[in-house]
Amino acid sequence: MNLILIEPEELGHDNTARLTDGRAAHLRDVLKVVPGDEVRIGLVDGNRGTAVVHDMAHDAVVLTCRLTEPAPPRPSVDLLLALPRPKVLRRLFAQCTALGVNRIMLTNAARVERHYFDTHVLTRDCYRPLLIEGLQQARDTRLPIVSVHRQFRVLVEDLLDEWTAPATRVVAQPGHGERMHTLIQDAGHSRVLLAVGPEGGWNDFERSLLESRGFAPISMGTRALRSDTACVALLALAHDALESRTQRMHTTALHAS
Amino acid sequence: MNLILIEPEELGHDNTARLTDGRAAHLRDVLKVVPGDEVRIGLVDGNRGTAVVHDMAHDAVVLTCRLTEPAPPRPSVDLLLALPRPKVLRRLFAQCTALGVNRIMLTNAARVERHYFDTHVLTRDCYRPLLIEGLQQARDTRLPIVSVHRQFRVLVEDLLDEWTAPATRVVAQPGHGERMHTLIQDAGHSRVLLAVGPEGGWNDFERSLLESRGFAPISMGTRALRSDTACVALLALAHDALESRTQRMHTTALHAS
Repeated sequence: MNLILIEPEELGHDNTARLTDGRAAHLRDVLKVVPGDEVRIGLVDGNRGTAVVHDMAHDAVVLTCRLTEPAPPRPSVDLLLALPRPKVLRRLFAQCTALGVNRIMLTNAARVERHYFDTHVLTRDCYRPLLIEGLQQARDTRLPIVSVHRQFRVLVEDLLDEWTAPATRVVAQPGHGERMHTLIQDAGHSRVLLAVGPEGGWNDFERSLLESRGFAPISMGTRALRSDTACVALLALAHDALESRTQRMHTTALHAS
Repeated sequence: MNLILIEPEELGHDNTARLTDGRAAHLRDVLKVVPGDEVRIGLVDGNRGTAVVHDMAHDAVVLTCRLTEPAPPRPSVDLLLALPRPKVLRRLFAQCTALGVNRIMLTNAARVERHYFDTHVLTRDCYRPLLIEGLQQARDTRLPIVSVHRQFRVLVEDLLDEWTAPATRVVAQPGHGERMHTLIQDAGHSRVLLAVGPEGGWNDFERSLLESRGFAPISMGTRALRSDTACVALLALAHDALESRTQRMHTTALHAS
């Protein structure tokens, strides 16, 4: 926990927040704070700043908050992910959020097992704390937007263009396709929309539909990865390629001036 | 399981192997094979090939193996990893192996809890099946070499040069340093030695020692990642950068000829 996130409704008019849950335990037992100490905090979907430990009585920790740093920008990567097994999904929520993702669109696909949709991991009460965990790890405050889609075709044909800003669209395929860095470097967009298939891959229909909607196949080499490993690896590559692109554009601008 | 790995001692003189464990269950229940079917196989640290399902009686599956494809090359990335929590380590063994790693050197560091060394996850009986799982996922046969080091300084000063081939040495730091792609592209080496620190980071002594031994700091942006997420992300970046480097050298060679 590199940042303690506070919900807007927890923040009193006097800028104090009274924590009693895992965050209080973390402050007490891991960070071993005493009254007067300063800790890094953030407001869910809001500013970041610092808080002074005001009081520690019983199980509560009372913080006086100063949220003066503007909220970080929302991440420039959106994720279209074929719904993985509940156990994997549970792990991925925090990991994807830590790496930085603006939207997580969980979709059906031919090779997704139907019963995956019945898991309670898809309920907001279950996944929201996992998103918060990822944000607290990465010192971010911006909650990803999560949506669940039982109809792949409706998502790709009707919703994607409306829901996502213009972006380099890529779909990972084992073994063939361009490299992510090359594609993103040469593209006109400063955002990425990444499609990650189910364990057995997209089927031909799904692949063609994605390609017809501008998704370029990218390769991560010939090794077949489990979908959680692939997802973390691809998000890391997407962010890295976007940052390289920004750096290169800065350098070009400097040389031109 | 994209490849069934067979131990050398399981392979009879007549090239048959009789499986009774999880691999037999996978063949029967997931791949739903029947006698006469062909499956992809590999020999641990050896060749790859195909096998024909010869017999299925009781709980056993008997395969007739043809291991004619030479073993894949060993991965060109070595990993020096501050020993993570046992639960995280257990997960990382398979994930790192799937991404491709030649050596996994698990080391002590100031911010590694001493009791992490007592876990049974560090016993060969526990981690070897996890490495095999990663290999079967990635269709590789080359077992990573795992070693455990209670003395960081002895490892870095005395063993590293002997144990690892010349490589671009990089150490991940949140927030500052060059980008991995840039460093690897411009380097004379076709291998990477990657150092990943403990949850709280390397301390000053450890960082200086690594830098004095040629480890260049690289940045993955300002987001702080859990060590398992960081490890998967960095291995993916290292492989991607090495493959981009190889492609660029091919292109340069083509233009020069």
